[in-house]
Parts: sequence; C-alpha cells; structure tokens
Amino acid sequence: MPRYRIIIEYDGEPFVGWQIQAAGASVQGELKNAIARFCGEEVTVRGAGRTDAGVHARGQVAHFDLTRDWDPFRVTEALNFHLKPAPIAVLDCAAVSGEFDARFSAVKRHYLYRVLSRRAPAALDRGRVWRVAQKLDPTAMHEAAQALVGHHDFTTFRAAGCQALSPVKTLDRLDVTVVGDEIHITASARSFLHNQVRSMVGCLKLVGEGHWRPERMREALDARDRKACGLVAPAHGLCLTRVDYPPDAC
Amino acid sequence: MPRYRIIIEYDGEPFVGWQIQAAGASVQGELKNAIARFCGEEVTVRGAGRTDAGVHARGQVAHFDLTRDWDPFRVTEALNFHLKPAPIAVLDCAAVSGEFDARFSAVKRHYLYRVLSRRAPAALDRGRVWRVAQKLDPTAMHEAAQALVGHHDFTTFRAAGCQALSPVKTLDRLDVTVVGDEIHITASARSFLHNQVRSMVGCLKLVGEGHWRPERMREALDARDRKACGLVAPAHGLCLTRVDYPPDAC
Repeated sequence: MPRYRIIIEYDGEPFVGWQIQAAGASVQGELKNAIARFCGEEVTVRGAGRTDAGVHARGQVAHFDLTRDWDPFRVTEALNFHLKPAPIAVLDCAAVSGEFDARFSAVKRHYLYRVLSRRAPAALDRGRVWRVAQKLDPTAMHEAAQALVGHHDFTTFRAAGCQALSPVKTLDRLDVTVVGDEIHITASARSFLHNQVRSMVGCLKLVGEGHWRPERMREALDARDRKACGLVAPAHGLCLTRVDYPPDAC
Repeated sequence: MPRYRIIIEYDGEPFVGWQIQAAGASVQGELKNAIARFCGEEVTVRGAGRTDAGVHARGQVAHFDLTRDWDPFRVTEALNFHLKPAPIAVLDCAAVSGEFDARFSAVKRHYLYRVLSRRAPAALDRGRVWRVAQKLDPTAMHEAAQALVGHHDFTTFRAAGCQALSPVKTLDRLDVTVVGDEIHITASARSFLHNQVRSMVGCLKLVGEGHWRPERMREALDARDRKACGLVAPAHGLCLTRVDYPPDAC
C-alpha cells in the first residue's frame, strides 16, 4: 500500500482540534472526508501532533495509506479541492516508504506562541494572538524560560489528562523575542506533553508582568506538581510551525 | 469643542468599508455608535482613508469632536469596550487642535498589499492575503513598479467612480519584496485615487506571471485610460498600515 506524507496548514478556530471526536469538526476528520471524496477510500490520517481546539498549524505533518499509486501533486490538488470550504490547506504531498510514521518518525516539533502585548484588543489578528494588556518584560521572560531548557520532569507543565507514559522530556529551545508589538515564544523539542507549551507560556506571562520572579520558573519545574503551574495560556495564540524528520525517514 | 484623533486597527472582512452606507455595517458607523454609547453624543467620525469593503487597517486615523474634555486614555478604553464584538480596536487617542483634520492634514499614506504566492489556498491567512497560484517573478514586478513612482496622471489605475478632482498624484514608493512565501507590495503617497493600489497590484501580478513585459507598466500608465488597466487585485489583500502628519498638525 503506497503511503503518502502531507504537510498541512490550518486555522484551528472552527475545529474541536486535530483529532476526530464524537461531536464537532476536526482537522483529521476533514482530511479523512476529503480523501474519501477524492478516491473513495476510507483511511486513518495520522498526524505528528494532536493539536487542541483553537491551535493553528503552518507545518503539521500527517500520513495515510492508499491502495493505489497516485501522483503526489494530483493528491495535493484533489485534497485542496475537496477540503473547501474548511480552512485547511495541503501544502505538500510526497510518496514515502511504509516505514515513515508522521508521529513516531518525527525528531523535532516546533511551535510559535504569539502574545500581542498592548492595551487595545486584537482586531486584525483576533484568534491568532493572545492579547495581554499588562506590560510585559520580555528580557525577564527569556531569562526565566532558560530554566526549562534541557532534560527535565515537566509534570508541572502537563495537563491532568496527558496520556504520555513519562513526564520527562528534553526541551531544546524556549526563546522569547520581541517582534513589533508582539512577543513571540518559540519552543522546540522532540515531543511535548499535553498542554506543555501553553503551560510554559502561561507561567512566562506571570514572569513578564512581574507576578513571578524569573527564578520562580525553576522552582515551579522542580516542584513536579501540576498545582505549581500558575497559568495555562489560551489555545488560539499557539501554532505548530514545523515538524522535522531524519533525512532517511522518507 | 475638543477634538480627538484616534488610531484604529480593523479587520475589513465583515464591513461594507470605512464609510457609512445605507445598508451593512461600516467601520465609521461602528465607531459613531461606540462614541454614542460611551458619552451620548452623535458625532461624525472623519477618516484619513475611505477603505473599501474587505480592506484592512492597522493604522487608520480619524478625528471627531466632543463637547466635553475627556482623558484620551479613558476615551480609548471606553471605545474599545463599546466596539465589542466588532473587530475594530482603537490603538491610541489624543486630544488635538481644532485645526487637525484626519483626511486633509495627512501628508502620507502607507499601504501594504500581501500576495501569497503558492499553489495551496490560504488557510490560516485567508481573508488577509491574495493567494496567487501562478509562479511570480518578484524582481520583474519590482522593476515594473518603478515606472509608476513619481508625479503622474494615474487615470489608468483609477476606479470609474473615483471622485478625486484630478487623476494626477505623486507616488513616493512602490516596492515589491519577498517575505517567506509571500510577496509584499508597499505603496506610499500623500494620497491615492480610488482603487489605485489594487489596480497597480493587479497589473504587477500580470508582470509577475509573465503575461506583461515589465515595460508594459509604463505603457499602461502613459495610456491614461482605465481600459489599459489589466486587472484589479481583490480587496482582502490590502491593509492601510500608517498615515503620517506633519509634527505641528496635532
């Protein structure tokens, strides 16, 4: 069975999240339906990251198997046609080996969290940024973020319902930068716990507004206790920007 | 009567445009209603640029008069409260002299037109960019654009219904740059004719995809004939980013 890898962009706003659920439109479900409309096959689409409701993607990766060999360009065009009017776009499609798995072959996931740091509400970027009216100190936020980089038990920054076997993860990067009147938080790791990025961003906001000293971030991490997480940032500021695979994974 | 100058951001998508019209919500109308709800006064809000339906703004400027002296910060906060849920945000408010006129005091207007240059439809940026599936040559587009910079009769690039007294305008800048998979066209002038930016961008797209030689842009300009305008770009890629005033205008 030929396997196809797709790279996907979506606006997370109208969806219950990546994963198919009993009620509500999901990105995975829309893709499954588009594939069925295109070639009549009922497939399971496996994604690299199960983004929550409201979380966006510019570089989600998924795979699925079809019984027939198709020109990948034709698959891309057909899926984009059949996905309308859902705000999901297939940016690329490639035929890959049966060994490739969008989730398990991934070696790094990259997220961007956008904070709009100003008094006025978001108008043009509503649903894409977390508007924080309090003045934030990005330098303190970046300093605090560095305590989380590395191999740690991230129990504090893990949703209660997280199904990962272990809370221990290696965070490769957590950078806080200023872009106009936005603060961008970029996070990279092989994998993340459920709600990990949003939990880290929520606590960084507490540091930025002076509620937390920067050192408190390490104390929160060391507590290994969900109750030590001060705040979880809303979903709509988050975007899965890229997933990396080893060169031989395709 | 104290005069107030506001700087406004909006998502143009749900509006019939800046200007109040017989039917449909307008940015000007939403602002007028918010001012009435805030202080009970019925005012005329005059904007620097009468953006069309679907055109966005990050730096529209407007003025209005109130009978009372208000703290400008309080005006901003009250308007943003009463504007909800419209996607309009007042970024700043200042008390200005009665001489200040948002439209006539302006010395420069800046627009950004975003073209998403790729096969796949826009998903996350839908309604913010013009997706052009054909491959575009930004170097040819920039070269062609330079023919329009300067003091010219822009009849070719002017909507049939344009009410300006003269078609002669001075275009200070028309730059075509590549930003990721987008092509950004930035235009600056003291003032523009109706649909001028969208008409220039439409013709630049024809150059970019090779339908027009770059030299054809000058020929179109020299024709001084609306029929020589090859294409008008859609409204939703356009954003009024800034309006400049002389330092003594406030």
